Amino acid sequence: MASENHKESARPVLPRTGIGIDVHAFAPESDPRPLWLGGLFWDNERGLAGHSDGDAVAHAAADALFSACGIGDLGTHFGTDRPELAGASGVTLLAEAARIVRAAGFEIGNVAVQLVANRPKFGPRREESQRVLTEAAGAPVSVSATTSDGLGFTGRGEGISAVATALVYPSS
Amino acid sequence: MASENHKESARPVLPRTGIGIDVHAFAPESDPRPLWLGGLFWDNERGLAGHSDGDAVAHAAADALFSACGIGDLGTHFGTDRPELAGASGVTLLAEAARIVRAAGFEIGNVAVQLVANRPKFGPRREESQRVLTEAAGAPVSVSATTSDGLGFTGRGEGISAVATALVYPSS
Amino acid sequence: MASENHKESARPVLPRTGIGIDVHAFAPESDPRPLWLGGLFWDNERGLAGHSDGDAVAHAAADALFSACGIGDLGTHFGTDRPELAGASGVTLLAEAARIVRAAGFEIGNVAVQLVANRPKFGPRREESQRVLTEAAGAPVSVSATTSDGLGFTGRGEGISAVATALVYPSS
Ligand SMILES: [Zn+2]
Ligand SMILES: [Zn+2]
Ligand SMILES: [Zn+2]
Repeated sequence: MASENHKESARPVLPRTGIGIDVHAFAPESDPRPLWLGGLFWDNERGLAGHSDGDAVAHAAADALFSACGIGDLGTHFGTDRPELAGASGVTLLAEAARIVRAAGFEIGNVAVQLVANRPKFGPRREESQRVLTEAAGAPVSVSATTSDGLGFTGRGEGISAVATALVYPSS
Repeated sequence: MASENHKESARPVLPRTGIGIDVHAFAPESDPRPLWLGGLFWDNERGLAGHSDGDAVAHAAADALFSACGIGDLGTHFGTDRPELAGASGVTLLAEAARIVRAAGFEIGNVAVQLVANRPKFGPRREESQRVLTEAAGAPVSVSATTSDGLGFTGRGEGISAVATALVYPSS
Repeated sequence: MASENHKESARPVLPRTGIGIDVHAFAPESDPRPLWLGGLFWDNERGLAGHSDGDAVAHAAADALFSACGIGDLGTHFGTDRPELAGASGVTLLAEAARIVRAAGFEIGNVAVQLVANRPKFGPRREESQRVLTEAAGAPVSVSATTSDGLGFTGRGEGISAVATALVYPSS
């Protein structure tokens, strides 16, 4: 028994790492949008352009999960062949990504996302965002934020960027 | 026996994480080049400039492996002191990076790369790319793709970017 | 005993991944600064702007550690409420980040940072930088470097960027 058990434990479950990047442009003044970011609604902030809610934090997290499993990306899973997801929120997409990842035979270790943006000031609502995304993924999601010191498209305030890593484990 | 075995299994092999970034500019119209990306040849697509094949996906994967082991980067290993690698393909460099990493005492867990580019449309050939890079590395390499929503140098179509993470394990 | 031991070893300590990005602009010619990067002083090199030493490599490493633990970022821990850290070096901040992370109940696996910059030429001092940052963190820190092929703000020489990943483990 002990040696059988040992055999199992000697073959440890190795994690797999993944990476995800997402970028969204701010909506033009002429076509204002609400801002959704990190799973939260941000009042009185300029929203992001595009046909999704532009939640780059949630999207990068979902892409990092798909990446860790080697099963594609947001385009693979939420492309035009799933019209019911058109306009879905970032939180909905992250929850659906977590479901797909588990159905593909993986457990989620954790996801970590860093936002690069001049606005909004993320710090005061960082923990709230972590709670919402962690609930969506069913696993720890950490969120942090920085600026690009005035450089590049994030520094000029043209848009925002988010980069994420994730660890997943093959289900035994 | 059991306790000896346990001692081994209680000291699990801890993975190490690495990161790699690679950027290449598109070749000017006046000096067209073939496009190699993710280990694949892309017909009728604008190629990348430079003295390598510009395969940012393969290069970022190799850099992430070196980074995880703490043994430098592409410049360290494929610099001007190895003229036989001048003009080597990205796949050749990734395979050689994997060989160097193993010779340095590490096993490769997996590598995950995300491409940021307007072109080529990567999705239809994603799995083909994963197969080629996985064979080169001798370990799972996942590839995913996104755009930067029209922003920055990738959004303006000046070039492409790839970011990779890797996990390696000290060989026991 | 054996089965008790097995129970422990069957519940392996799972790592958590984190990510950190940091960007700094070069100081203007009219207000020259010394260059500190990767924990090293670089003579005869243009320095970085800002009220810190601008050591993007050390800052990205610290942010990746915080990110892996889900306990915020540089702004959370080294914000204006800790005036004693105003003007602290990157190495000091990385050492303090490692202390905070351990106090929060985590062991550090490793940290990997990649610098994206035209200058300084990092390769010749890469190992020296790794030694300094590894000592600061009390865990392996790898550093590698690349350029962005003349593209974007790093390619135009407006500033530098660093991206880091880290693995941490809950202390048992
Ligand atoms: Zn998105
Ligand atoms: Zn390259
Ligand atoms: Zn900084």
